[in-house]
Amino acid sequence: MISITAIGSYIPAARESNYAKKSQFDIDDDFITEKIGVKQVSRKASDEETSDLCVKAYADLLGRHGGIEPIDCLIVCTQNPDGSGLPHTSAIVHGKLGLPPHCACFDVSLGCSGYVYGLSVIKSFMQDNGFSNGLLFTADPYSKIIDPQDKNTALLFGDAASVTLMQSAAGPGTWQPGPFRFGTQGKGGAALENRDGKLYMNGRAVFNFSATEVPLQLRQLLQGLQLGIDDIDLFLFHQGSKFIVDQLTARLKIPHEKVPLNLADQGNTVSSSLPLLLQGYVDDPQLHRIVLSGFGVGLSWASCLLTRAP
Amino acid sequence: MISITAIGSYIPAARESNYAKKSQFDIDDDFITEKIGVKQVSRKASDEETSDLCVKAYADLLGRHGGIEPIDCLIVCTQNPDGSGLPHTSAIVHGKLGLPPHCACFDVSLGCSGYVYGLSVIKSFMQDNGFSNGLLFTADPYSKIIDPQDKNTALLFGDAASVTLMQSAAGPGTWQPGPFRFGTQGKGGAALENRDGKLYMNGRAVFNFSATEVPLQLRQLLQGLQLGIDDIDLFLFHQGSKFIVDQLTARLKIPHEKVPLNLADQGNTVSSSLPLLLQGYVDDPQLHRIVLSGFGVGLSWASCLLTRAP
Repeated sequence: MISITAIGSYIPAARESNYAKKSQFDIDDDFITEKIGVKQVSRKASDEETSDLCVKAYADLLGRHGGIEPIDCLIVCTQNPDGSGLPHTSAIVHGKLGLPPHCACFDVSLGCSGYVYGLSVIKSFMQDNGFSNGLLFTADPYSKIIDPQDKNTALLFGDAASVTLMQSAAGPGTWQPGPFRFGTQGKGGAALENRDGKLYMNGRAVFNFSATEVPLQLRQLLQGLQLGIDDIDLFLFHQGSKFIVDQLTARLKIPHEKVPLNLADQGNTVSSSLPLLLQGYVDDPQLHRIVLSGFGVGLSWASCLLTRAP
Repeated sequence: MISITAIGSYIPAARESNYAKKSQFDIDDDFITEKIGVKQVSRKASDEETSDLCVKAYADLLGRHGGIEPIDCLIVCTQNPDGSGLPHTSAIVHGKLGLPPHCACFDVSLGCSGYVYGLSVIKSFMQDNGFSNGLLFTADPYSKIIDPQDKNTALLFGDAASVTLMQSAAGPGTWQPGPFRFGTQGKGGAALENRDGKLYMNGRAVFNFSATEVPLQLRQLLQGLQLGIDDIDLFLFHQGSKFIVDQLTARLKIPHEKVPLNLADQGNTVSSSLPLLLQGYVDDPQLHRIVLSGFGVGLSWASCLLTRAP
C-alpha cells in the first residue's frame, strides 16, 4: 500500500497586492475579499525556473521529514515547464537534486486537477513497479504566461510548488489515497488556455462547468463508498476562487467548518493549491477521512478519498 | 491483467529525401544508408496539429480492431503538444474523438523513452482504477522545432503518431507488459533540448550515453528474469539511428535477425518509433517474448519485457 507520508511546499516571498490594483481594474474590497478571496498573489523571481521552485519545495520536505533514500521515482505535474519542455522538468529536478540513475522521472501535463490525478498515477506506478519512495511535485507558475493587464487572470493566479512524499512502508497516521474519480470535457477546453504565450480564461464557463460537474462527481464518489457528508472530516477543494468553493459547499450542503480556504495570501496556485492546503492537516490525528477535488484546465476534474491509516 | 491488444499508427505521406540534401550537408550514400540509416523523413502538413496525428492513428486502430467502448482513459506522450501545451493534448484528442465524460485524460512529457514509460503508466493506472479500455498515444512531431539547416537533426527525425489499445479483458495472443526498468541522467539533459523553439542535439553525447546505459539495463532486466538473449524472440530498440541500433546489437551479442530496423523511410519518430515497429509483430503467433528499449531526451532510458498470453 502506497501512502502519503509528508508534504513540502514553497511559496515565493514576493507578492502583488490586489488592493493596489483597485482603480486599474475598477474593483472594490468586496470583490477582493468575498468574490475571488485573493488579497495578494505570489510571484516567483524572473530568474527562478519551474525546477527551482521544485528544489525549494524539496528542501522544505527534508526539513519536515529528514532524508529519504533511495528515491525510486519523481513526477512533476506542470503545464509551464522549464524552458520549452524538452527535456522534461522532472529530469532537470533529478539533476539538480543529484538523484540516483535508477530513478524513474516523467512530467504529467495537467492543470488544476493535476494533484488528484498525480496521486493516482504515482501510487499505481510505484505499486506496480515495487518502488519504496516516490516524489510527486506540482509547480505551475502561471506568472510566466499572465498578462498583467488581464483582470480575469492577473488578480487570481499565484506561483507555488509542492512535493508529496509517497512511501510503501508507511506506518500509522499516513494517508492512503483512493478510490479516485476522473472527468474530462475536452470540447470545453478553450475556456482556459495558453494562446500564443498568454493565458486566456473564460471565468464564467469555467465556473459553470465546475459548479455542475464537481458536485455530481463527489456524490458518485461518496455513493460508491456508501458514505455521507457526515462521514468525511474535511473537503479540500481546489482553491479556484472563494466564490467557486462557496458554491460547491452550498450545493453539496457541507458544513462550512469542513471546507477550509487558504488562497487569500497567495492566490490560486493551480495544481499546488490542494497540496498546500492538505499540508496543514496531514499530521492531525483527529482526522480520519479527507476528500480532495481538483477542477479546471482541460476541462478536467478529479476527486478522491484519503484515509488515515490507524 | 492489462494487455496490449492492438496498435494503430499514422505516418504523414509527405517526405523529405536525404539524397536531395547530399551537397547541402556534404554527406554521401554511405552516411545515409549505413550511419543514420534514414533515406527520407516524414513531415506533417503545417496545419496538422499533434492532436490531428493522434486522431489519424486512432482511425487506423479502428480499422484494425473495430469499435471500442467505453474508453476509460487516454494518455498522450509528447513534448511537442498542441498550441502551447495548456490545455493538454489528451483533452483536445478527447474532444475531437467525442469520448465520454468519465474518461481520464492526461499527457506524459517524455521523449524517446516515452513508449516504454507510457506502457507502465497506463497499465498500472488502469489496473489500480479498475478500467477496462485505455488508449496510449505517442505523437511528437519534431518538425515543429527542427532547424532545416541543422545537419544533426534535419536528416534524422520524422513525424508520426501511434495509439496502443490496452485492455483488461484481453484474451490469448495479447501482450502483457512488464517487468520494467527505468533510468535517468538529468545532469546530461542539455545534450538533447529545445532551445528557444529550436531542437539542439549533441549526437556524440547521446550516442555515448545510449551505448553505455542501454546494454547495462537490458542485462539487469534479463538477469532479474533469469533469461538469456536466446530466450527472447525479438529486441525492439528505439530507432535512434542505424548506427546506435547496430552498436547495441553488437555489444549485447544479439543475432541480427532478432533486431529489426524500420527507420529508413520515415526517420527517428521519437516515442512513436517503438510502437511503429511493434505494430508489425503483435499478431505473429510465432513470437512469445519481446524486449523493448527506448532511450534519449532527459537523458532517460527504459526497457521492458512483453510476454504473449498463451
